Amino acid sequence: MWTDAKAEVGEASGSRASIRRRVLNSLLLCAGDMGYLDKYMQDKLFVLQLAVSGLRGVTRVILANNPLSGALILAALFWASPWQGLLGTLGVLVSTLTAVIMGQDSTEVSGGLHGFNGMLVSLLMGVFSSAGDWYWWLVVPACLGSATCVFLYSGLSSLLDRWDLPVSVFPFNITILLYLLCTGPNNPYFPHHTVMPPGALEPNDTKLLTVEVTRGIFLGVGQIFACGALGPSLLIVGAVLLYSPLLAVHALLGSAVGTLAGLSVAVRHDSLYSGLLGFNGALGCMAVGGLFFTFTWRTHLFAIASAFLSAYADIALSNLLGTVGLPACSWAATLTSTLMLLLTGSLATYRIPVGQVMAPEHNLRSRTQWEAGNTAERESTDVLTFI
Amino acid sequence: MWTDAKAEVGEASGSRASIRRRVLNSLLLCAGDMGYLDKYMQDKLFVLQLAVSGLRGVTRVILANNPLSGALILAALFWASPWQGLLGTLGVLVSTLTAVIMGQDSTEVSGGLHGFNGMLVSLLMGVFSSAGDWYWWLVVPACLGSATCVFLYSGLSSLLDRWDLPVSVFPFNITILLYLLCTGPNNPYFPHHTVMPPGALEPNDTKLLTVEVTRGIFLGVGQIFACGALGPSLLIVGAVLLYSPLLAVHALLGSAVGTLAGLSVAVRHDSLYSGLLGFNGALGCMAVGGLFFTFTWRTHLFAIASAFLSAYADIALSNLLGTVGLPACSWAATLTSTLMLLLTGSLATYRIPVGQVMAPEHNLRSRTQWEAGNTAERESTDVLTFI
Amino acid sequence: MWTDAKAEVGEASGSRASIRRRVLNSLLLCAGDMGYLDKYMQDKLFVLQLAVSGLRGVTRVILANNPLSGALILAALFWASPWQGLLGTLGVLVSTLTAVIMGQDSTEVSGGLHGFNGMLVSLLMGVFSSAGDWYWWLVVPACLGSATCVFLYSGLSSLLDRWDLPVSVFPFNITILLYLLCTGPNNPYFPHHTVMPPGALEPNDTKLLTVEVTRGIFLGVGQIFACGALGPSLLIVGAVLLYSPLLAVHALLGSAVGTLAGLSVAVRHDSLYSGLLGFNGALGCMAVGGLFFTFTWRTHLFAIASAFLSAYADIALSNLLGTVGLPACSWAATLTSTLMLLLTGSLATYRIPVGQVMAPEHNLRSRTQWEAGNTAERESTDVLTFI
Repeated sequence: MWTDAKAEVGEASGSRASIRRRVLNSLLLCAGDMGYLDKYMQDKLFVLQLAVSGLRGVTRVILANNPLSGALILAALFWASPWQGLLGTLGVLVSTLTAVIMGQDSTEVSGGLHGFNGMLVSLLMGVFSSAGDWYWWLVVPACLGSATCVFLYSGLSSLLDRWDLPVSVFPFNITILLYLLCTGPNNPYFPHHTVMPPGALEPNDTKLLTVEVTRGIFLGVGQIFACGALGPSLLIVGAVLLYSPLLAVHALLGSAVGTLAGLSVAVRHDSLYSGLLGFNGALGCMAVGGLFFTFTWRTHLFAIASAFLSAYADIALSNLLGTVGLPACSWAATLTSTLMLLLTGSLATYRIPVGQVMAPEHNLRSRTQWEAGNTAERESTDVLTFI
Repeated sequence: MWTDAKAEVGEASGSRASIRRRVLNSLLLCAGDMGYLDKYMQDKLFVLQLAVSGLRGVTRVILANNPLSGALILAALFWASPWQGLLGTLGVLVSTLTAVIMGQDSTEVSGGLHGFNGMLVSLLMGVFSSAGDWYWWLVVPACLGSATCVFLYSGLSSLLDRWDLPVSVFPFNITILLYLLCTGPNNPYFPHHTVMPPGALEPNDTKLLTVEVTRGIFLGVGQIFACGALGPSLLIVGAVLLYSPLLAVHALLGSAVGTLAGLSVAVRHDSLYSGLLGFNGALGCMAVGGLFFTFTWRTHLFAIASAFLSAYADIALSNLLGTVGLPACSWAATLTSTLMLLLTGSLATYRIPVGQVMAPEHNLRSRTQWEAGNTAERESTDVLTFI
Repeated sequence: MWTDAKAEVGEASGSRASIRRRVLNSLLLCAGDMGYLDKYMQDKLFVLQLAVSGLRGVTRVILANNPLSGALILAALFWASPWQGLLGTLGVLVSTLTAVIMGQDSTEVSGGLHGFNGMLVSLLMGVFSSAGDWYWWLVVPACLGSATCVFLYSGLSSLLDRWDLPVSVFPFNITILLYLLCTGPNNPYFPHHTVMPPGALEPNDTKLLTVEVTRGIFLGVGQIFACGALGPSLLIVGAVLLYSPLLAVHALLGSAVGTLAGLSVAVRHDSLYSGLLGFNGALGCMAVGGLFFTFTWRTHLFAIASAFLSAYADIALSNLLGTVGLPACSWAATLTSTLMLLLTGSLATYRIPVGQVMAPEHNLRSRTQWEAGNTAERESTDVLTFI
């Protein structure tokens, strides 16, 4: 029953629709990409535009694009830790502003594409810092790191454009590794925790707790924002659900697959309980299952394969980078998603050009109509989508 | 006296050729690419097609493409170790089947292009496993790893197509490193040996044995299939000889160059005796000497340079990856061959487009005819070859 | 007062200009790219052409292109250490000759583009060698390494051409790391020093000496040629000044920025004093400030940003590679410059196509004339420059 909100509203206003339908429509207005908001915001104050861009940027981290979901996620982060929430907000604002100053494409800026990498860098600097909360000096590297992401985003987009690939979170992954390498665990100004690889041996054999593992699957979605508490993680799942139920299902599925992959190579129990093994699987699964590809049972199978690849690659990279005390961040999911987008063969026929990616339900509806022979709408949108 | 088998056969059947010539022709039918087999196989059983594709895949590892050579190589692997032979067969079948299921290009599949990476992954998992032979659980990662290679092959081919570069064994090299990183030496399910870098110091100065070093040169060709016994290695050289004598000569030459490079930087004697230093040189030498470039004395010199580059790069990468207990596999040869294919200048004029690469003798004959002014055939084949 | 020498000379010869102006013109003839020399050299002896190409190659290291600057730099290197000077000369000659033999583009060869990587490899092999000066065996790897650079330069140029990116010092950075990995610190034939990362902790807290830090800024420019003495470093600055005052200013500015970056993350004092922290900043600053982009206050700001990025990336990479005893060379500046060239947005509008890069003052004059409405010259040069 999930359909394009705007179209429905257009019809509803001119017909004798029931009140129930109107309520549903109001709800649907808040779901999906909320693209109609962009037109409405055009002549508003810059600060308001910046806020919407920032909130869109917050959701881009989790492959969504909806300002209300962004507000929910920010709330979850402030709930988990006010200092983390503040750093995240700072990061998204600084990088969006840097993009404006550097004269980046305004559609990209208002779509939040320049905010999410900066947010993650800022957030993770706070998480890895061993100087404790409210260590205000951390604001300096957080601002510099967020600004660096804009340089990397812009440069990498020129590079990846040749294959119509998204930049996704490459800038974040590069910047945070450089920051951690720059400072080192014993730095007098910016000390940070070292990371224990998931393949490290446990001191003594402890029994695996099923409840904790199940909890870890939900935490896996929260760990995309480096959030390790159950309540905020569930709120983040809710935020994704608001944008697209299909994406939320794939997020949880991917996190479960990641946990399964971890069990199969006997990782430390801690990394299963904390959800750290799930988030790469979740991202890998979401990217393929509905977002960059039209959802069908075939892409669903590929999404599961992508989740497994992401999860195993994450364990491998974590073990590798762990030898020098570094985290693998979301390298595995980013590389795997890029690989899936490059695939030839049957998956490639379902691929949506990066510039036209919207909420999975929107993509799905376009294709369903197209297959039903709805040629009128097809000519206007689908021809572009399925060239 | 090496000429195109098919043409000869065509002439022979209509002429009063001697019996001796007929025997030679039958032999030549088994040499080279055996391209006529593809037409013959078109309407045969799927299992038969799969077998031929698999055998072609086996030879692709060593840059050849001939089902009979593949059968010889498989025999050599089963001779060296039945468990290894079984794993190799499993790998090539699983990855070829995965490619069929994933809807990859059927010409690529039947040419064995989706089999060789999977075979190597499966084979090397067996070699590095410290759980001993007939440890049946290893079949699970072997199947998953082989399937992963198809994803990587397909994705990388989209990437490298822009420069008309072959994917070669990049997928194998990536997958095996990820597998070894995932599990680690002390993994309870899939333990494996750690690797000692060739640059490690020897406990005490021992005298270098010339006989052993010479033996290592022949083993170097076998080590392309991770085979460290002399008999099977010689059988593998024989299999290459059947496909193309020129390639076999370059294989041994490259292996010798690799050994020479190793001597010049004083590596451990073990790595010289085992042939581990020779196989990257062999692959680097084969790729340039006749396969991707028309054979002339100029390309021959470049082939020797490529062998040296591959060998030194292999020692460097082995020392680097050895610090985290990983092998350098065939990264060096793969990267060097890719570099040689990208070269501009005099070497580039001899380059054969990747889609038209055949047995070196075939390439050589085309060029000889072309230089002799045989314009009739030139128009049909060489125009495409030397654009 | 810096203008295009050739144009001035052309006007001067036909007018009643004062003697003072003639002296200035003679000076200006030696500045900038000295492009008129190429026409003059066309029919001269090969040895003479090779010498000029070599001297141009020497200056390419520091992003300049002027044979007289090259002679000054060589003098500085021989002053600092005759053995180093000899190795550098050998490197530039061997790699230029290899390029001629390999049939590389003759314009590139005469422009010195195939010389600078070989020179740096040869120079750095001498610096890292722990066998002392005048260890003649080192000539063998120096020659092989220099020749390898030509292979890498040619291959990488095919790769990077797609984005109109220069190969810059990627070949040097790759080759020197491979050499150091091949041999290792305790190699019996080619031993070398290990490198201490800048993030290593100091034995006890010593006071930072301001004079030494200031000295380090000047040494930073010299360290581009691995030269750690003040006199020769100043001579190198002078050589850059001869080519382009703007470039010299940016070199010192970048070195200062690098030192500042080092202070902000509390690196070892030694790496500040030796200038090792400054040279990546200097290179990053020079590339953006005037060379690959027309000089304006905007590109000047981007140049400072580039210097900071280069410097921080250098500290990070030095700490990473230091864990296996390797130096970060100029990876950071090379990667950062490449990133800046890929940037979209306001910086991209000032970008000069790689094939048309000349001395910053020449680029600046072209743009000034263009903005003043000098359409006559604009049509001949600027149309190409600002497509």
